[in-house]
Amino acid sequence: MWTYETSVVWTEEKKGETHAGGKPPIEVATPPEFGGPPNIWTPEDLLTSSAASCIMTSTLFFAEKAGIEMRSYMSNASGVMEKTPNGLAITRITVEVAITLVDASQEAAIRKAVDRAERTCPISKSLRCPVEVKLHINGNQETS
Amino acid sequence: MWTYETSVVWTEEKKGETHAGGKPPIEVATPPEFGGPPNIWTPEDLLTSSAASCIMTSTLFFAEKAGIEMRSYMSNASGVMEKTPNGLAITRITVEVAITLVDASQEAAIRKAVDRAERTCPISKSLRCPVEVKLHINGNQETS
Repeated sequence: MWTYETSVVWTEEKKGETHAGGKPPIEVATPPEFGGPPNIWTPEDLLTSSAASCIMTSTLFFAEKAGIEMRSYMSNASGVMEKTPNGLAITRITVEVAITLVDASQEAAIRKAVDRAERTCPISKSLRCPVEVKLHINGNQETS
Repeated sequence: MWTYETSVVWTEEKKGETHAGGKPPIEVATPPEFGGPPNIWTPEDLLTSSAASCIMTSTLFFAEKAGIEMRSYMSNASGVMEKTPNGLAITRITVEVAITLVDASQEAAIRKAVDRAERTCPISKSLRCPVEVKLHINGNQETS
C-alpha cells in the first residue's frame, strides 16, 4: 500500500495552489468555462495529465524490462467531460503516443510494451472511463 | 461537452514534462517507490490533487451561490494505492478540508456547500474509488 499526500490552499477568487511535499507548487483554478481564469491548470487538466503521464511511466517500465531503447516519446491527451445521468464526469480519455525508436527492429516489442502499459496503468484502473492509447511509431531515418 | 488537452514529453530516465496550452509545464516522473527520482510530481500525486482541487473549486462554486464568505480554505488529501484483484489502483482518496469563515453564523450553510461539492465534483464522479471529504470549521477569534 502506498499513500500520496498533497494539499490545496485557496488563494483568491477561483484560484488556489496545490503542494506535494518538496515538489514545485502548481497553481490551480476553476476552468474558464465555469467562471475561472485562463492559463491555469484545472482539476480536469490534472486528471488528463495524470492518466497520460501514467501511460508514459508504465511504458518506460515495460520498455526497460524488454530492453527497448527509445529515442523519443511524446503524447497528446484529451479528456472529455460531459453531462451524464450521474452528473458531470470525464467520460473518456484518449492518449495519442508517438515514439521514435533507436532500433526500428524493436517495433513489435514497443507495441507490446505500450499495450501492457495501456492494460495495467494504475491511473486507468482508478477511472470509471476508458483511457484509450493510440500508438504511432515514427520512422527513423537518422543514423547515429 | 468540454475537452481538456494536455501533452507529455519524455525528457530522460524516468522523467518527463506535461504541458497544457500556455500553462506552466509540470515535471512528472515515476514514483520513487517504483524506481523514479524524488521530489517530482507523479501520476498518483496529480490524481490526488485533481480530486482535492475539484473539491475546492466545487466548494467555491456552491459557497458563492449561497453568499458565503470564507476567510480561508485549505485541504490535505491522501490517495491510497493498493494491489487489487484488477491490478494496482487508487482505492480511496480522503480530503480533509479546513475552512475559516468571515461570519461564523454561516457554518450550517458552508457545511451544506461542502456536502454538495463532495456529492457533485466531476473528478469524484470520474473515479472508481470514493473521494471522502472531512470538513473542519476553524473557530474565528479575529475581528476585522
